[in-house]
Amino acid sequence: MNNDAKFAVLGGGSWATAIVKMLTNNQKEVGWYMRNTDAIEHIKSQRHNPNYLTSVEFKPEQLILTNNINEAVNYADVLIFAIPSAFLVGELEKLTVSLKDKIIFSAIKGIVPESGLIVGEHFHNVYEIPFDHIGVITGPCHAEEVAMERLSYLTIACADTEKAKLVANNLASNYIKTNISKDIIGTEYAAMLKNIYAIAAGIAHGLGYGDNFQSVLMSNAIREMKRYTKRIHNLDRNINKSAYLGDLLVTGYSVFSRNRMFGNMIGKGYTVKSAQMEMSMIAEGYYAAKSAYNIKENFTKKVKTPIIDAVYKVLYENKNPKKVFLDLTDKLD
Amino acid sequence: MNNDAKFAVLGGGSWATAIVKMLTNNQKEVGWYMRNTDAIEHIKSQRHNPNYLTSVEFKPEQLILTNNINEAVNYADVLIFAIPSAFLVGELEKLTVSLKDKIIFSAIKGIVPESGLIVGEHFHNVYEIPFDHIGVITGPCHAEEVAMERLSYLTIACADTEKAKLVANNLASNYIKTNISKDIIGTEYAAMLKNIYAIAAGIAHGLGYGDNFQSVLMSNAIREMKRYTKRIHNLDRNINKSAYLGDLLVTGYSVFSRNRMFGNMIGKGYTVKSAQMEMSMIAEGYYAAKSAYNIKENFTKKVKTPIIDAVYKVLYENKNPKKVFLDLTDKLD
Repeated sequence: MNNDAKFAVLGGGSWATAIVKMLTNNQKEVGWYMRNTDAIEHIKSQRHNPNYLTSVEFKPEQLILTNNINEAVNYADVLIFAIPSAFLVGELEKLTVSLKDKIIFSAIKGIVPESGLIVGEHFHNVYEIPFDHIGVITGPCHAEEVAMERLSYLTIACADTEKAKLVANNLASNYIKTNISKDIIGTEYAAMLKNIYAIAAGIAHGLGYGDNFQSVLMSNAIREMKRYTKRIHNLDRNINKSAYLGDLLVTGYSVFSRNRMFGNMIGKGYTVKSAQMEMSMIAEGYYAAKSAYNIKENFTKKVKTPIIDAVYKVLYENKNPKKVFLDLTDKLD
Repeated sequence: MNNDAKFAVLGGGSWATAIVKMLTNNQKEVGWYMRNTDAIEHIKSQRHNPNYLTSVEFKPEQLILTNNINEAVNYADVLIFAIPSAFLVGELEKLTVSLKDKIIFSAIKGIVPESGLIVGEHFHNVYEIPFDHIGVITGPCHAEEVAMERLSYLTIACADTEKAKLVANNLASNYIKTNISKDIIGTEYAAMLKNIYAIAAGIAHGLGYGDNFQSVLMSNAIREMKRYTKRIHNLDRNINKSAYLGDLLVTGYSVFSRNRMFGNMIGKGYTVKSAQMEMSMIAEGYYAAKSAYNIKENFTKKVKTPIIDAVYKVLYENKNPKKVFLDLTDKLD
C-alpha cells in the first residue's frame, strides 16, 4: 500500500462534504461523485457545496468532480462511500466498471435496507470484495464540527492494518485525530445501533423526560450495544472506546443529530410519516431500527434489547410512544 | 431492620431538599437539620425552602425541622448526610450525642478535605461506624429534576442489603426508581470522580471544544474512572451502570451541573479564584481534584489518569488551561 493511492468520495451530503474537506488537507486531488449536477457546477464556480456545510471552501482545482459514479470509481484506488444507506443499492446499480482491487471504506453508518446487511457485509456478499479490502470510518464526529475545524477523533477500522493506516493518514490533520481498529463488524454495527438509541433519546426528550432519565437511557444503551455487538461478533472489544461509546454520546446528546430530532418529533406527537416529511435529511436510525430488530429476532441465543424493541414498536407497530416508554422505564436500571 | 425506622436529612441545600421531598412521599415525619434559622422559619410559614428548589411545597407538619444537629441525630435511626463535603467536619464537631447504632447514608459525593477520605471512609475511620451501617445514595440525579418530579433513578449502596432496601423503599415513588448495590466504595469514588470530569468538560467547552470532543472526553473519562475505582477496590463492577456512567453523563452533559459551570468559567479565562467567587454554590469537584490526585499519587501500582491530572494542573498548579488541554488531546483516543 503506497501513499500515492488516489481517493474518491461518493456522496454529496454533509458527511461526504466533510470527508472531502479532510482529504484535501492531505491529497493534491480528490475524486468526488455526486448525483446533483447543479451542486457540482456550484462547487466549481462558487467553491462550496450549496446544500451542505456551505461554509467550507474548496479549491475546485483540487477536486475531480463528476456526476458519473463510474468515473469516480475508475479514478480512485480508495473509494469512500458516504451515500445514505437507503440510496446505496440504487447508486451501485449504475456501476458498469468493476470494484475488483478497489479498497472500499464505508462512512455510511447504516443498514442497506434491500439486503438487511451493514455496508461492509453488503460489499462482501454482493460484490465479493474480500474483507481485508473493506473498512469503516466512524466517529464520534458530526460533519458540522468538521466544517468548523473543531477537534474531532475518527476511528478507521480495517482487517488490514496497513490500509487502515493509509486512510487514517489521509484524513488526519491539526483538527482530526485518528485511531486504528480491526473491529470492522463491531464498529459498523455500533455506528448503526447508536442511531436507534439517538431516536430513543429524542422520543424520551419529546415526551418530557429530563436529563436524569437521558443519562440512565444512555447507560442502558451502551450495555445493550455491548450485548448486541458481542452476539454479532464475539470479540474482546472495549465498548467504552470512542468508536462505540463516544459515537453513541455524540449522537444521543447533540443538537446536530437528525436521529435525535426525528425521535423528538415523534415524542412530541408527530406521526412517523409526518416526522419523516418534516425532515429534509434522512434519519438513518429509521431503517436501522427495523434491521437491528429483525437481525436480533434471528439470533439463536436471544439477547435483551429493550431500547431497540421500544423504538421498533413505536416506528413499525404504530404503538403509542408514551405507553411504550412507560413500559421501557421499568426495564432500565 | 423494620420499616418504622425514622429518617433525618442533614443539610439545607438543593440535594438535601430533594431527598426530604422523596422521603415525605413515604414517611409520616422526616427530621431535617439545617444551620439556617431563617430558612427553617420560612419553610414552616411559607411551606418551601427559600433558597433551594423553591417550587417544592412541603407540609410543615410532616417535618421535624431543627437547627441543632444533635436533635436531628437523636430523632432518627437513619441519618442521610447531604452537607457539602467542605462543611462536614465543622458540622460533625457540633455533635454531643453519639452516632453509635445509627445507620449513616452519605448523599455527599465528595471528599472530606480535612481527612482526604470519601465520606463513608471518614465515618468509619473517625467515628468507628461499622461498614455495614454505612451507605451511599447516588444518582444520576439532579435535584432540580426531582423538584419537577421528572423520572430519576437512584442507586442505594450498602454492604448490608437489608439496609439498602430500607432506604431505597423510603426514597422510591412514581418518579423515583431505585437500584441496590453493595459497592459502597466504588459508587462513592465514582460520584466523586465524575465531578472532576464535569469540570474537565466545562473547561473544554469554555475553551471552544465542541460536541465531538466532549464525547471523546467522556469516553476516556469512563475508562479512567474504571481504572481508578478498580485500583481503589478491585471488584467486578460494570462501570456502565447508571451509578457510574449514568452519573458521569448527567453531570458532564447537563446545564444544571455546578462543576461543569465552574470549569466552563475557567476555560473562558476566569482565574480559579474569580470563578469560585462568581459561584454561589460550591463545586465539589474542586476539592475532589486535589484529593483524587493525591490519592492516586500514593498508589503503589500507578494508574493512568490524564484527565484528573489535567484538571489538577489547571486548578492547583496555575497552569494555562489552553496549553494543558492541548497536551491532553494527545493522550485521549
